[in-house]
Amino acid sequence: MKTIGYAAQTSSSPLAPFAFERRDLRPGDVAMEILYCGVCHSDLHYCHDDWGNAQYPAVPGHEIVGRVIAVGPGVTRHAVGDHVAVGCLIDSCMDCDQCHKGEEQMCRNGATGTYGGHDPVFGTPTRGGYSKHIVVREEFVLRVPQGLDVARAAPLLCAGITSYSPLRRWNVQAGSRVGVIGLGGLGHMAVKLAAAMGAHVTVISRTDAKRADALALGAHALLVSGDTQAMRNAASTLDLIIDTVPVEHDAQPYLPLLDIDGTLVVVGQVGAVGTLNSIPLLFGRRRITGSPIGGIAETQEMLDFCAERGVLPDVEMISMDAINTAFDRLAVADVRYRFVIDMASLAAA
Amino acid sequence: MKTIGYAAQTSSSPLAPFAFERRDLRPGDVAMEILYCGVCHSDLHYCHDDWGNAQYPAVPGHEIVGRVIAVGPGVTRHAVGDHVAVGCLIDSCMDCDQCHKGEEQMCRNGATGTYGGHDPVFGTPTRGGYSKHIVVREEFVLRVPQGLDVARAAPLLCAGITSYSPLRRWNVQAGSRVGVIGLGGLGHMAVKLAAAMGAHVTVISRTDAKRADALALGAHALLVSGDTQAMRNAASTLDLIIDTVPVEHDAQPYLPLLDIDGTLVVVGQVGAVGTLNSIPLLFGRRRITGSPIGGIAETQEMLDFCAERGVLPDVEMISMDAINTAFDRLAVADVRYRFVIDMASLAAA
Repeated sequence: MKTIGYAAQTSSSPLAPFAFERRDLRPGDVAMEILYCGVCHSDLHYCHDDWGNAQYPAVPGHEIVGRVIAVGPGVTRHAVGDHVAVGCLIDSCMDCDQCHKGEEQMCRNGATGTYGGHDPVFGTPTRGGYSKHIVVREEFVLRVPQGLDVARAAPLLCAGITSYSPLRRWNVQAGSRVGVIGLGGLGHMAVKLAAAMGAHVTVISRTDAKRADALALGAHALLVSGDTQAMRNAASTLDLIIDTVPVEHDAQPYLPLLDIDGTLVVVGQVGAVGTLNSIPLLFGRRRITGSPIGGIAETQEMLDFCAERGVLPDVEMISMDAINTAFDRLAVADVRYRFVIDMASLAAA
Repeated sequence: MKTIGYAAQTSSSPLAPFAFERRDLRPGDVAMEILYCGVCHSDLHYCHDDWGNAQYPAVPGHEIVGRVIAVGPGVTRHAVGDHVAVGCLIDSCMDCDQCHKGEEQMCRNGATGTYGGHDPVFGTPTRGGYSKHIVVREEFVLRVPQGLDVARAAPLLCAGITSYSPLRRWNVQAGSRVGVIGLGGLGHMAVKLAAAMGAHVTVISRTDAKRADALALGAHALLVSGDTQAMRNAASTLDLIIDTVPVEHDAQPYLPLLDIDGTLVVVGQVGAVGTLNSIPLLFGRRRITGSPIGGIAETQEMLDFCAERGVLPDVEMISMDAINTAFDRLAVADVRYRFVIDMASLAAA
């Protein structure tokens, strides 16, 4: 199937229109017309080859919402016309212990990324959602539940599940005390999701500037990390901290905010997060961990939760040809809180 | 009550005989004749004032086993003649959420250390087990179960519980894959306890030199951390790592050894444990945490477990006047695996 997308040709070139082929439908495949695609910070890293896995022409995008336009033989989960979604994964071995328990993102044989991976049958580079169409095996295609606004749902597929998964894993419920560091794409979803789960949510920010924004998103308090006295007063007051800061930073100063057996989960930065001193770990059994996206079943659970509870990201809709400006703005965190590409704009181009 | 012990008079002086008073029995108090006291690395740190909390004359020792010689009014748990034990704590508020759930070591109002603390009634400095007698409120006095060798039991009170608590917390059971870094007082107990719980135990050591010792203690394998290829081959093979290294070191290289959702628990070093990179945390949801001693109930559970399963530390018995030589040897990790002071030697002095 011929399609069109936007691709970076090198690590330093802007994204530009790029025509390419999607595979013919194999048994079990679903073909989607992409309606919306969210713009994740990973897209930027990928195009710039920050992680050394770029395949040019690089077509990023793993927050994909669309409509089924064709299905291959044997497809039972989805039908032509359904609103569906695809996140960061489009395949895995389906045969290891992790896949068997629905943790395809942890596949022992390596899950296939929506972009930056290789088609497990053909070996061709995978290309993401900055495009008009995509073909994905049905097990990796999510249902967009009735009542979930398709125009705003796309960021749930990465920012949403990346926030949701650790909140669930660490048993956030009514009365839980959750801190969120960083108020970008992931952070604003962590605030909304934790609040929807009944938690008391504190945004932790370097200054007081984002207080009104934090409260508007559903947070109950803002803690200024630059205020030594406020940080000291807040010692041992949180059960869970979701650290969404996507760049190198020192996570250590946040640890004393955790109560006994509390957990700090890094979900943003891939790489250095400072030095580590065992004192707050020992005297409080505090924990540092990380969390990537979730599995397919948990991603569906998250979409259903968002539909039921009316949780949606705050998005800024852009046309496909505005992507380079969006990347520039994203690099300086100038977005509230997620760009979403309206793929109708690509047809018009 | 008059007693005698060994004390350091300054941070640089050797330990020497020191006569002092133990408090008169208050209601609920138990007076013990100390029979044996283990020599913990913390004792060395305390005498040298490495942690800034030394009170001179400093009498260390918090691995105490002895016999009840008198009880105060209202004591119901212990009787004259009982073999009993005292660990790192001799008091706490007994009224906060942590004390209510048996986690006195996490007392919100600050538990009282066996040494280095202050008597909560009189405000006087607490003095530890390098002495002939001690007086402790009955709730903080443990029963030495029938069948547990009193001459070898002392190190269980700190090294034992510090190893036991994280093994229990992280659900070690038959088939668990446990790594132990460092083969000193804590490490050798971690090996014995994890093996007694049915785990497959791997000692992680810089060289192959300790292989025979590790296997003799009950470990099933030794992994040489200096062998890059062996470390790579061992990636994702452990559920839990107990890091007993008592000095500054880099914990990061051990993280990839953990399987998905695996946990590294720092129990030795109090302070810097290297730099932290989020990659092994994110892609595997691995965790780093710490663990101090356990609460009184868990300490009793550990003593009962050791009695039932025949788990005992390997000790080198010394006389009280050999303590300075023992400190020198402990500083260079020259002990297999714990010095225990025979307090009968103090009476003879």
